[in-house]
Amino acid sequence: MCGIIGIVGTHGVAPALYDALTVLQHRGQDAAGIATVDGARLRLHKGNGLVRDVFRQEDMLKLPGHIGIGHCRYPTAGSDQVDEAQPFYVNSPYGIAFAHNGNLINTQQLRREVFEDDRRHINTDSDSEILLNLLAHELQIQERMALTPDHIFKAVAGVHARARGGYACVALVLGFGLLAFRDPHGIRPLVLGERVTPEGREYAVASESVALDILGFQRLRDIAPGEAVFVTMNGQLHARRCAEGAVHAPCIFEYVYLARPDSMMEDVSVYKARLRMGEKLAAKIRRLRPQHGIDAVIPIPDTARTAASTLAQELGVPMREGFVKNRYIGRTFIMPGQGERKKSVRRKLNAIGLEFRNKTVLLVDDSIVRGTTSKQIIQMAREAGARQVYFASAAPPVRFPNVYGIDMPAASELVAHGRSEEEVQAEIGADWLVYQDLDDLIAAVAEGNDKLKHFDTSCFSGEYVTGVEDGYLAQLEFLRSDEAKAKRRSA
Amino acid sequence: MCGIIGIVGTHGVAPALYDALTVLQHRGQDAAGIATVDGARLRLHKGNGLVRDVFRQEDMLKLPGHIGIGHCRYPTAGSDQVDEAQPFYVNSPYGIAFAHNGNLINTQQLRREVFEDDRRHINTDSDSEILLNLLAHELQIQERMALTPDHIFKAVAGVHARARGGYACVALVLGFGLLAFRDPHGIRPLVLGERVTPEGREYAVASESVALDILGFQRLRDIAPGEAVFVTMNGQLHARRCAEGAVHAPCIFEYVYLARPDSMMEDVSVYKARLRMGEKLAAKIRRLRPQHGIDAVIPIPDTARTAASTLAQELGVPMREGFVKNRYIGRTFIMPGQGERKKSVRRKLNAIGLEFRNKTVLLVDDSIVRGTTSKQIIQMAREAGARQVYFASAAPPVRFPNVYGIDMPAASELVAHGRSEEEVQAEIGADWLVYQDLDDLIAAVAEGNDKLKHFDTSCFSGEYVTGVEDGYLAQLEFLRSDEAKAKRRSA
Amino acid sequence: MCGIIGIVGTHGVAPALYDALTVLQHRGQDAAGIATVDGARLRLHKGNGLVRDVFRQEDMLKLPGHIGIGHCRYPTAGSDQVDEAQPFYVNSPYGIAFAHNGNLINTQQLRREVFEDDRRHINTDSDSEILLNLLAHELQIQERMALTPDHIFKAVAGVHARARGGYACVALVLGFGLLAFRDPHGIRPLVLGERVTPEGREYAVASESVALDILGFQRLRDIAPGEAVFVTMNGQLHARRCAEGAVHAPCIFEYVYLARPDSMMEDVSVYKARLRMGEKLAAKIRRLRPQHGIDAVIPIPDTARTAASTLAQELGVPMREGFVKNRYIGRTFIMPGQGERKKSVRRKLNAIGLEFRNKTVLLVDDSIVRGTTSKQIIQMAREAGARQVYFASAAPPVRFPNVYGIDMPAASELVAHGRSEEEVQAEIGADWLVYQDLDDLIAAVAEGNDKLKHFDTSCFSGEYVTGVEDGYLAQLEFLRSDEAKAKRRSA
Amino acid sequence: MCGIIGIVGTHGVAPALYDALTVLQHRGQDAAGIATVDGARLRLHKGNGLVRDVFRQEDMLKLPGHIGIGHCRYPTAGSDQVDEAQPFYVNSPYGIAFAHNGNLINTQQLRREVFEDDRRHINTDSDSEILLNLLAHELQIQERMALTPDHIFKAVAGVHARARGGYACVALVLGFGLLAFRDPHGIRPLVLGERVTPEGREYAVASESVALDILGFQRLRDIAPGEAVFVTMNGQLHARRCAEGAVHAPCIFEYVYLARPDSMMEDVSVYKARLRMGEKLAAKIRRLRPQHGIDAVIPIPDTARTAASTLAQELGVPMREGFVKNRYIGRTFIMPGQGERKKSVRRKLNAIGLEFRNKTVLLVDDSIVRGTTSKQIIQMAREAGARQVYFASAAPPVRFPNVYGIDMPAASELVAHGRSEEEVQAEIGADWLVYQDLDDLIAAVAEGNDKLKHFDTSCFSGEYVTGVEDGYLAQLEFLRSDEAKAKRRSA
Repeated sequence: MCGIIGIVGTHGVAPALYDALTVLQHRGQDAAGIATVDGARLRLHKGNGLVRDVFRQEDMLKLPGHIGIGHCRYPTAGSDQVDEAQPFYVNSPYGIAFAHNGNLINTQQLRREVFEDDRRHINTDSDSEILLNLLAHELQIQERMALTPDHIFKAVAGVHARARGGYACVALVLGFGLLAFRDPHGIRPLVLGERVTPEGREYAVASESVALDILGFQRLRDIAPGEAVFVTMNGQLHARRCAEGAVHAPCIFEYVYLARPDSMMEDVSVYKARLRMGEKLAAKIRRLRPQHGIDAVIPIPDTARTAASTLAQELGVPMREGFVKNRYIGRTFIMPGQGERKKSVRRKLNAIGLEFRNKTVLLVDDSIVRGTTSKQIIQMAREAGARQVYFASAAPPVRFPNVYGIDMPAASELVAHGRSEEEVQAEIGADWLVYQDLDDLIAAVAEGNDKLKHFDTSCFSGEYVTGVEDGYLAQLEFLRSDEAKAKRRSA
Repeated sequence: MCGIIGIVGTHGVAPALYDALTVLQHRGQDAAGIATVDGARLRLHKGNGLVRDVFRQEDMLKLPGHIGIGHCRYPTAGSDQVDEAQPFYVNSPYGIAFAHNGNLINTQQLRREVFEDDRRHINTDSDSEILLNLLAHELQIQERMALTPDHIFKAVAGVHARARGGYACVALVLGFGLLAFRDPHGIRPLVLGERVTPEGREYAVASESVALDILGFQRLRDIAPGEAVFVTMNGQLHARRCAEGAVHAPCIFEYVYLARPDSMMEDVSVYKARLRMGEKLAAKIRRLRPQHGIDAVIPIPDTARTAASTLAQELGVPMREGFVKNRYIGRTFIMPGQGERKKSVRRKLNAIGLEFRNKTVLLVDDSIVRGTTSKQIIQMAREAGARQVYFASAAPPVRFPNVYGIDMPAASELVAHGRSEEEVQAEIGADWLVYQDLDDLIAAVAEGNDKLKHFDTSCFSGEYVTGVEDGYLAQLEFLRSDEAKAKRRSA
Repeated sequence: MCGIIGIVGTHGVAPALYDALTVLQHRGQDAAGIATVDGARLRLHKGNGLVRDVFRQEDMLKLPGHIGIGHCRYPTAGSDQVDEAQPFYVNSPYGIAFAHNGNLINTQQLRREVFEDDRRHINTDSDSEILLNLLAHELQIQERMALTPDHIFKAVAGVHARARGGYACVALVLGFGLLAFRDPHGIRPLVLGERVTPEGREYAVASESVALDILGFQRLRDIAPGEAVFVTMNGQLHARRCAEGAVHAPCIFEYVYLARPDSMMEDVSVYKARLRMGEKLAAKIRRLRPQHGIDAVIPIPDTARTAASTLAQELGVPMREGFVKNRYIGRTFIMPGQGERKKSVRRKLNAIGLEFRNKTVLLVDDSIVRGTTSKQIIQMAREAGARQVYFASAAPPVRFPNVYGIDMPAASELVAHGRSEEEVQAEIGADWLVYQDLDDLIAAVAEGNDKLKHFDTSCFSGEYVTGVEDGYLAQLEFLRSDEAKAKRRSA
Repeated sequence: MCGIIGIVGTHGVAPALYDALTVLQHRGQDAAGIATVDGARLRLHKGNGLVRDVFRQEDMLKLPGHIGIGHCRYPTAGSDQVDEAQPFYVNSPYGIAFAHNGNLINTQQLRREVFEDDRRHINTDSDSEILLNLLAHELQIQERMALTPDHIFKAVAGVHARARGGYACVALVLGFGLLAFRDPHGIRPLVLGERVTPEGREYAVASESVALDILGFQRLRDIAPGEAVFVTMNGQLHARRCAEGAVHAPCIFEYVYLARPDSMMEDVSVYKARLRMGEKLAAKIRRLRPQHGIDAVIPIPDTARTAASTLAQELGVPMREGFVKNRYIGRTFIMPGQGERKKSVRRKLNAIGLEFRNKTVLLVDDSIVRGTTSKQIIQMAREAGARQVYFASAAPPVRFPNVYGIDMPAASELVAHGRSEEEVQAEIGADWLVYQDLDDLIAAVAEGNDKLKHFDTSCFSGEYVTGVEDGYLAQLEFLRSDEAKAKRRSA
């Protein structure tokens, strides 16, 4: 989970990139970076932490230039490395800065090829460095001093031919312009916008349309699957489809949880999709338990609130804000003579007793991943006096790992992995657990755009649109568990 | 607006004080501090910034001790000083650390007296330093090496006799214990809790009961107006009323905006009070406009959500989350060749277009202070396509300054100061503006506890329960404007 | 070992205090602080580290005022506390900031008395906090709102009557002025200077006259033993002897090692005193070994250079800079799989081989304390090819602890403690070791001022001019060893 | 002026690189960096500031690996860029980290060629980035996956064929080893050492032999002009002369000022060379003024001390340490209502009055560059009471810019540029000024190694061993003045 932004403007873009990163930061809070083109120089500042902590006034002043890219990161691969903030940079050919959102599933092979083809050394575990060097190599073999859009699109086609996975990318090519492209299946999102100013037309690409909104750009359209957009230094926009024949399959989890509700993705309002998820879930509940006896629908803040509102409305039951979220979460300290205190959900949520006392409540969350939080919240509801605690998930059971850039634990740590719904219900301690059906989820999103036929639903269905090599998932299982262990060791 | 916490525990309390401050931090994000008693030593760490930034692991390790106090600050007086974080400390007599929430209205006189009576120098503009030195002086004149609770309560009575205003205080007296007390009118809140552990009984006092919840303490009761509670080093609790005859008049603004919804204050659930505010406002709307034609009720997140939910329910209109709040707000940078960008509400909120398009919407906020935010939000609603924009305030018009510790601008900067409701409606650009009636607001809170007869409602009514000297408000007007100017200068 | 400075100027003094601290910093590099009087406020900034690291531009801007004090610290007591930088502050009475150089030998008794007499809590292990509270108490019992110099001098006399040890002090009394005083024996140094400016006369007091030199002040005289100097806010100087009958006994170690060569102390040039130390040592060497056969005199940089120059000249032997000092010493890192690397003198010094090869060299140091450095240096000289390595100490054997503010290890860690000169010679591995005689050392200093009859020579002679209680030295032995252990633990 | 170090060890080298940088830091205090090879990864940490400030414990732990390079910088070119600390890194081919000491005189042409030949973008003004990309390009065109020493030496020969100037370089080639080489004239120094350990033989190269001394390495020899040394990952050393026919002309200024006295360069002891400079200067003084009447020889600390010692000895006059250097120099603050205080030599030096009073003194410095410091010091000597102030420079008049990596101001700012010795004498205010003759300086150095026939003496003679293009010096004059202006602006 990462957020990306790129702008070709008519004056200094660093403040706009910064503002865009703050509204994309729900996609990644671990690290942030901005690169701009300042005449013949590339300027780059990045670091670990929140956008507001990484960039100080003095850092911003060192980022002049009317064209630039930005990135905020939530690690998927390479998470044990501290200095893998993006954008990345290579000086050959031309000088290229690069940032992306997504994940590749053939990194090991690519890493080897990149070295063998072009003796390009990859110094981190980051997919981004591999993609950047793929792109650099493909540009290098164009054997041209002066790049045309045609050469650039050929290079992107070369990247698509070798990379497998989900990826949305932005790149600065020094002396030429801003390049943005999206994987052939369009798994990860990327949207294009423009702003007309007295000084000329400006273009921006971003992971989500909210970033365009805050900057006053008009959303033009999503970048198409496999499409590349190239904006020259003086603002000429070129676009071309650089991969053909692939099924368009955007990640459905963006609608469930990841994207902001006020974003439009593939011409679908995320907010509306969530409203429909609530409606469909209500229909299922009424179907299964016409006499449900629910006194209140209580969303787990914040994501579930939208679906919960229509769910409550359709059920004819009041929705109540029974949980208050703590806005200021602190750290957990290791004090002498004490073990580390358990990371409790109580530090994040507090229950309002009177909304639970002697009631049958339906708690609603967007999805259930590990199940540990759901279990603790159900326990909180009981301690607050609830008579019966029902639990609804606006998404189907999460049973398989995501390999396209959504940060999820190893399959074995997913509560629904290898468990029936009844078993999950028992595991999390709910009196009744109801999951959204996958068809309903698909319908809830697809109703917004009748051209959308397919989605990446792999974490629910186990079907991977790109295919995966034998053994890949097993290795991933090992890696993600191993990483977890490493983290525990070094924490 | 500040938050305070004090704990007498059975083992190291610093982590608990830290956690409590994080859930009290909505009361003040400017500075934070913790003091503990470590054997014969007082340990103190404080600084500007959020709790999570002020305290690092190494700072926590230097705060051993099973008794301590904490503070988070939103400046009311002394706001132009950077190093006025609390707790404050004096070494004579005994060594006392002190923190408080509130504001005094006779500070100038007290500052003079404190110096003349005891040659005690006050080095800051902070009320807290004055209160601390009042307390120190009153303890000093007890002329005793060994303090008993009786001496301590006499000293508190001495403080009450001299201090005028709203204040809730916690103090550590080295070698003796934790002292907590509240002003004679009980304007500012303070609640007492206990926790029974295998090692013994523990006590805590806090501005709000949520701080007790997160620590697993049971709320026992509110500290009474004028009451002092003293817990000895070994956990013996003593309590006494140290001021008599004053009207109990808690600040009603705590219920409107300041307190967390999951807090209990004066045995009233803040959450429930807000639900009732929504109900009463709905009744008024139906009374005034039976054919209101409202399509959706849209709360301004986050505080207004509770009142909006009952308001919508009573009106029989759906509530919609039409505004999405940006969780990660960044700074505003001054870039060369640019003026400072305007601090726009757009950086904080984003409208979901479809909830507004061609609708008559009722925006709901907890209150209207300067009116500038309301004006911008109404403008956003119009740009998002709303046909009619109505605006409801869950509180009456704010027309007078608060002098008891709620941070508010100078009276002249309050949009309702000297304006009729119609004039405010025009000023903020609403098609219709409806305010809660003061009687309804009082009823909404008082219904929770039939012993509550009076409140401090001064910012609505202009009636100050402690009285104010001639000229005090005029001077305040000058000061707050002056401060504002100073801030603008130095920003 | 600490350095102090106080100035009453005609305009902002913070930059001058800062500059003075940088030239006094050889007296203490652990911490630094400055306090100034800004109208009715005391401004204070202090921290651990070098002066240039503790004070940034923004810190200096917060230290306005034309009167102030400064301090740099090398810890003697209380060294295990991190936040004991000076100046210290109490607000009662008047507001007093205080800093000192020296050490008390009756701290335990005073700490108890201060609490019992005035219920004043001492929160650190620092002597300075005790002295400050003694002074505060003595000022308090003057029972006066308006202090006259007479009251202040009475208070200082009260301090002298209770404190035992060596101390030179500066204090700011808010609303009144700058106070400086020195212990009755004049053990620790303090010098007075003035500067006449167009705006009026300015006064400064400092540990060493170099601080006056750099500021362009004229040295007037040393503050006399037991004398106090008080300069009012408007620059009126008052002085009075506040203790009578004590023997004047300045610390002789200042001349041997601590003071800068360009300082004048008690009207004696430190530089000249060291030249005479070299001459007297040469005389002893010629007396003991007329055929010494020395090829080169090689000083251990930097302090020994002055004495070595006359020593070489008198012996008729060339002086050679055989050791080069590393200007940029780094830290010692703890790397995985490695123990901490030994703190070797090789990181501080490098030998120039050709000055040693096949020569009989006389290494000269100012004194020998633990002997470990001397031993390593002798070893370096041998490895560089020296035929014979002689070693001369410009001071007599250090056999007893210093209790008046010079940082020295526990007696048991002094190489000469309980050893004859021959045994020390064997221990450090010299072919010949020659120490200065104590009478010669005294003469070398006293020749500069024939009024100087006595010195504190306790670390050589074991005679303490203030007397010491039974058991004090034993306890000190324990404490200093214990501290050392603690340091090793926490390092 | 920069210092470089490279080590191929048998275990982690970061602490050794760190220690080496601290003893090389007199060559550059602006920035520091270390790169190590950790398996298949390059680890790099660098920053502005002193070595001890740039590297913290946590940074060192991230620099594992038994092979690495280090750099400390005093800027010559590119000094207006903040982020140009070395080592630099490119990932193609192989991954190369690079650091160097020196300066190129055909940078503009090279920058253009590097881009045109290989589309390699140079993102800074640093010569090092150009040299690195030259090397990378030459390695790339070897068209080999597996590099042999032969290929590497061919690449270095390719670099020599294109680069003009003085340069000593270290580079890490990932997967292969450590490369070190020196320009064809051997202008900048580079020395090779080895250490035999139980785990095997280790090699190190460094700017000065002191870095080998502190690490316990034996100095083997200087790297020859045009020679390259390559040490494989497993410690095999290969060496080859990669440029032929050039005159060996080491920079003579290293002996005058830059190098540490305890270094051996070209088999000449810097210390001994300085002793001989003093002797020759004494001979000249006796020749010119047999009755010189000098009472004392006073070195300007620290560099001049060595030459002054033999100068004094030969003249039969005592040498006196008349100036005390301030070890702890602080910053200069800009206070409100004050201009910036003048950067006075008084903040760095303090005169000991008695060494000057009524004496004829001969002040000795290593060289005279701008003359401003000399002027102030002479003034100080007069104020301290000197009757006559003579001034001797151990080097001839500095009249021309250095273009091979010694940081010097624009020619127009050199006091001797376009002035006779008499005019300089008048300008700095000396009663008599005596300069070393260039022949004497050359002899003083060359006596240590009879194979040394030539030196780069360009700053004295204006003769540049590499030749310089028409207009280069004029442009340099402009640049260095411009830089100075820029610095004043931004300071």
